[in-house]
Amino acid sequence: MPGVPPARYAYLGPEGTFTEAALRTLPAASRADLQPYPTVGGALDAVRAGDADGALVPIENSVEGSVPVTLDELAIGEPVLITREVLLPVQFALLARSGMTLDQVKRVVTHPHAEAQCRGWLRRHLPDATIGRAASTAAAAVLVADAGASYDAAIAAPVAGERYRLTALARNIGDNPDAVTRFVLVSRPAAPSAPTGADKTSLVAFIRDDHPGALMEILDEFAVRGVNLARLESRPTGQAMGRYCFSIDAEGHIADARVGEALRGLRRVCADVRFLGSYPRADATPATVRPGTTDADFTDAERWLERLREGRL
Amino acid sequence: MPGVPPARYAYLGPEGTFTEAALRTLPAASRADLQPYPTVGGALDAVRAGDADGALVPIENSVEGSVPVTLDELAIGEPVLITREVLLPVQFALLARSGMTLDQVKRVVTHPHAEAQCRGWLRRHLPDATIGRAASTAAAAVLVADAGASYDAAIAAPVAGERYRLTALARNIGDNPDAVTRFVLVSRPAAPSAPTGADKTSLVAFIRDDHPGALMEILDEFAVRGVNLARLESRPTGQAMGRYCFSIDAEGHIADARVGEALRGLRRVCADVRFLGSYPRADATPATVRPGTTDADFTDAERWLERLREGRL
Amino acid sequence: MPGVPPARYAYLGPEGTFTEAALRTLPAASRADLQPYPTVGGALDAVRAGDADGALVPIENSVEGSVPVTLDELAIGEPVLITREVLLPVQFALLARSGMTLDQVKRVVTHPHAEAQCRGWLRRHLPDATIGRAASTAAAAVLVADAGASYDAAIAAPVAGERYRLTALARNIGDNPDAVTRFVLVSRPAAPSAPTGADKTSLVAFIRDDHPGALMEILDEFAVRGVNLARLESRPTGQAMGRYCFSIDAEGHIADARVGEALRGLRRVCADVRFLGSYPRADATPATVRPGTTDADFTDAERWLERLREGRL
Amino acid sequence: MPGVPPARYAYLGPEGTFTEAALRTLPAASRADLQPYPTVGGALDAVRAGDADGALVPIENSVEGSVPVTLDELAIGEPVLITREVLLPVQFALLARSGMTLDQVKRVVTHPHAEAQCRGWLRRHLPDATIGRAASTAAAAVLVADAGASYDAAIAAPVAGERYRLTALARNIGDNPDAVTRFVLVSRPAAPSAPTGADKTSLVAFIRDDHPGALMEILDEFAVRGVNLARLESRPTGQAMGRYCFSIDAEGHIADARVGEALRGLRRVCADVRFLGSYPRADATPATVRPGTTDADFTDAERWLERLREGRL
Repeated sequence: MPGVPPARYAYLGPEGTFTEAALRTLPAASRADLQPYPTVGGALDAVRAGDADGALVPIENSVEGSVPVTLDELAIGEPVLITREVLLPVQFALLARSGMTLDQVKRVVTHPHAEAQCRGWLRRHLPDATIGRAASTAAAAVLVADAGASYDAAIAAPVAGERYRLTALARNIGDNPDAVTRFVLVSRPAAPSAPTGADKTSLVAFIRDDHPGALMEILDEFAVRGVNLARLESRPTGQAMGRYCFSIDAEGHIADARVGEALRGLRRVCADVRFLGSYPRADATPATVRPGTTDADFTDAERWLERLREGRL
Repeated sequence: MPGVPPARYAYLGPEGTFTEAALRTLPAASRADLQPYPTVGGALDAVRAGDADGALVPIENSVEGSVPVTLDELAIGEPVLITREVLLPVQFALLARSGMTLDQVKRVVTHPHAEAQCRGWLRRHLPDATIGRAASTAAAAVLVADAGASYDAAIAAPVAGERYRLTALARNIGDNPDAVTRFVLVSRPAAPSAPTGADKTSLVAFIRDDHPGALMEILDEFAVRGVNLARLESRPTGQAMGRYCFSIDAEGHIADARVGEALRGLRRVCADVRFLGSYPRADATPATVRPGTTDADFTDAERWLERLREGRL
Repeated sequence: MPGVPPARYAYLGPEGTFTEAALRTLPAASRADLQPYPTVGGALDAVRAGDADGALVPIENSVEGSVPVTLDELAIGEPVLITREVLLPVQFALLARSGMTLDQVKRVVTHPHAEAQCRGWLRRHLPDATIGRAASTAAAAVLVADAGASYDAAIAAPVAGERYRLTALARNIGDNPDAVTRFVLVSRPAAPSAPTGADKTSLVAFIRDDHPGALMEILDEFAVRGVNLARLESRPTGQAMGRYCFSIDAEGHIADARVGEALRGLRRVCADVRFLGSYPRADATPATVRPGTTDADFTDAERWLERLREGRL
Repeated sequence: MPGVPPARYAYLGPEGTFTEAALRTLPAASRADLQPYPTVGGALDAVRAGDADGALVPIENSVEGSVPVTLDELAIGEPVLITREVLLPVQFALLARSGMTLDQVKRVVTHPHAEAQCRGWLRRHLPDATIGRAASTAAAAVLVADAGASYDAAIAAPVAGERYRLTALARNIGDNPDAVTRFVLVSRPAAPSAPTGADKTSLVAFIRDDHPGALMEILDEFAVRGVNLARLESRPTGQAMGRYCFSIDAEGHIADARVGEALRGLRRVCADVRFLGSYPRADATPATVRPGTTDADFTDAERWLERLREGRL
């Protein structure tokens, strides 16, 4: 269709990162115009401004944890909608400056979770190396890339090697082949796609005041309607020490009656609730539906209540 | 209005009981036809059969506890609707057979709670008497009325003296002037009267199976919607030892959004829920309404959810 | 042993009731001196005064519910200890005055739960009879025994026929052969017998003030330690309408660590807790022990805490 | 005392950071030997190896949230003990490369929370500037320091200016003067210092398996003993997506009976619990102690249970 311009997707750059790789797994991206942005906020703002139709950003990593800046960027500013999630395997490489060989490596640096995940390989291949720890695997690569580095090699993603001009002395050195990074595809506000039976709903709940039990109240709004949580993380609101909001992934779709009632309950007990989207789970695991919480159960209860209110006992 | 037949009210007889006294406190009863029935079930069945427009039956007594047969009769059979509650002060008298005098009383019998409530009077006037205990104050009167009675006097309601031909040796001997009996006025199914802001909703919840935590689930359905309970009693269902239903008075009216959602929740988690009525509280105490649980809060949350589902974030 | 006087057991009389039958199922009662008392309180006071070594009283009935006077008598007065429970099958008979035949029976009276349990027999044998309802099956028998009775027959326990000189027109007419009455054997305070792994602990919890959530707090003290409840009933305290205590049977023995910690928790949150005894379950069902709640788990946690407090991390 | 070597403190370097400033607020540091380390792990390992007597590391920031690497480093490896916390005000500066003037600034970059906290200043002084966002305020400074930078200025801590050779165009530009960073002083395992009545207890709870309700169970162990939480954060365990541990600061001291019982409860329901220390709160706010949860209440309940177990009812 010659008259139709291709879709435009923003992603957390630079080119060649895992995020681009994840974006390329989406069929819709195959003929689209892909644009790297230096920050997560930049990619999201491209969507907000209409410069991109969607943005793919990392949100959670089974090694280093959530990506705080993504959680924060989604929680503030103009609303956007998560429409998909993408999972990409995590791969570790041992990266060093040019000229270094494996048998010369005495001091390795990495994030503690990455160290924990490569312990088997380290024991077999570098039993005598000391292991320093950095704030992230990328930060470890930076520490190694520096000419006067006090480390010989970093455990990091292969892409960090390309970025910081390091050489991979070994690849795929992780003990756990299931480690993954999770990305979300974000668009401008729209009605969510139809439920599939295996969906997630993401939101941020800002508690009304910092009373003991506020978190339990939030959990209870989900539990009473039989909605399981797939992820819950506290995040500071940036207002004062000890003021948190909660970033939540719940099982189910906003169109599900049980999820809808839980959201309404949250809305009533929270200072604010930001809905981030309902979308198919990448792992296609159907939501657990407890007895009494199907849409039919909700409809039956609604009609029963109407009858009672009209005096038809 | 010559052509209009007077209203007919059934009550737990016989004539002259507290129940009749309670019924006569109702303006509507002043020109009505009042009919005593030997049993609570009989009075309720008169309503069910159309032989009476309403029935007044005792449901709870601050001395001897709930009236189990009333709870059971309301819980089974054709549905009926509680439309009012009536509170009547409890008064205690010391009753004896004719000829007995106060200084001859050595052995008193009564229900343990009545003994507890007359302890001050007993200490002052009968410090040396032994106190036997009966299953009810009426049963105590029966034990005294018997010619070969092993008791000299009973503490019971004055009306029991009339009924069992006993003489009151002393009246108003209770230490607590606030003790009351609670009655409910029951009619055939109809739409409940409009909320007053100081209402109660009565119901019976039959748990789905006897799993640990079933009661907590029921309590949670109310708590999550900010609905306080004024009374909760377990009752056996008559099916097997350890199978209970819960007889509940909740604060608020079925027309209140928070009560309605709690009822719908109960309907979904329980095997059965029987709604018994929403009616003004006799003590006119307004319901406590927690922030986030007004009708306006529910309406706001409903509209918010609709907007989200339509993509208007 | 000629010099040892036989044990003396009190029971709720008169002779010939189900309670005596239940007492006779105990081996210890076979050579004991059994003494009927007219009231539950009288039987318990015989134990308190040292006039009896034990007292057997009914506490719960799968047809008519708990026996309130027993719950109340155990909850107040000098403390006593429940040392055993006894279950006895409930049997129903159709009782009439002498001379009545089955085909003459037009009006039957009984407790609503008993009616519910004999519905099959009634449909087959008395399809046209009207069914009145009484406050108890014994009260139904009384209503029939009266010469001017408005009922032809009562559904009640066979023993009620003996007591009120009624004839059994039919026996074993209940649809549910598993219906039982539960009795408890009560002695003076003593250390409970050793745990068997299939025990119950009975107690009464008096809530501190009538705040919403008080019952949930009580339930939570048990739930957090993995202690299931076998029975929970609210009882008025006799002080004012709406003031309750909770009569509770918990699974497990006071010597179990999890039950002990739950009791200590109750003691701290309640105005008062009365321990009524730990004793073997009549049905010998072992308590469910959730992972993390064995005595060994509690001991391990205690030692771990001690180590931490001493700085041995 | 010439013979006593000075204490040695490690801290997250390099020299001149906020962490050094925080360390210098401690009296004990005034005559000590202070040693910067490039990573949090390095500073903690210096303590573990005996190369330092204590290490000061940042743990939480009211702007950018918790310091994940510190949470992770404390949660794994050889146990260490938090003995103090230090709060230091957060200050923001507008940093630019040399030669830039305030009226030339068109593109600012910073962390979204920092942007939110400087919104008033930005509106007054740079109303037309575009605001890009970075993963941290330090990362924003890095983006600006780069010669080919696409940003003119960064909002960051003043210390970042020194580190990346940027000039402060404006200082103290935050709207909220209460913003703080929280640091903890960590030592080798030892018995915690005595309770002060205004203490915090830090720990990490690893849930046994990822069942719905695991977090609620953890919260309930604290709530039932009346222990409030000051901070709760989920952290991935690094094992698989969706496997979390919970980093928790509770009000109170491990020597408090209520905290001790809550910890024992956690130990029983969790796969593992790592105690990180009990120490005085920097803000000296006394713990809220709910009725029934004082040490005296626990002692009373313990003695009461002992009496019951011995038969002294």
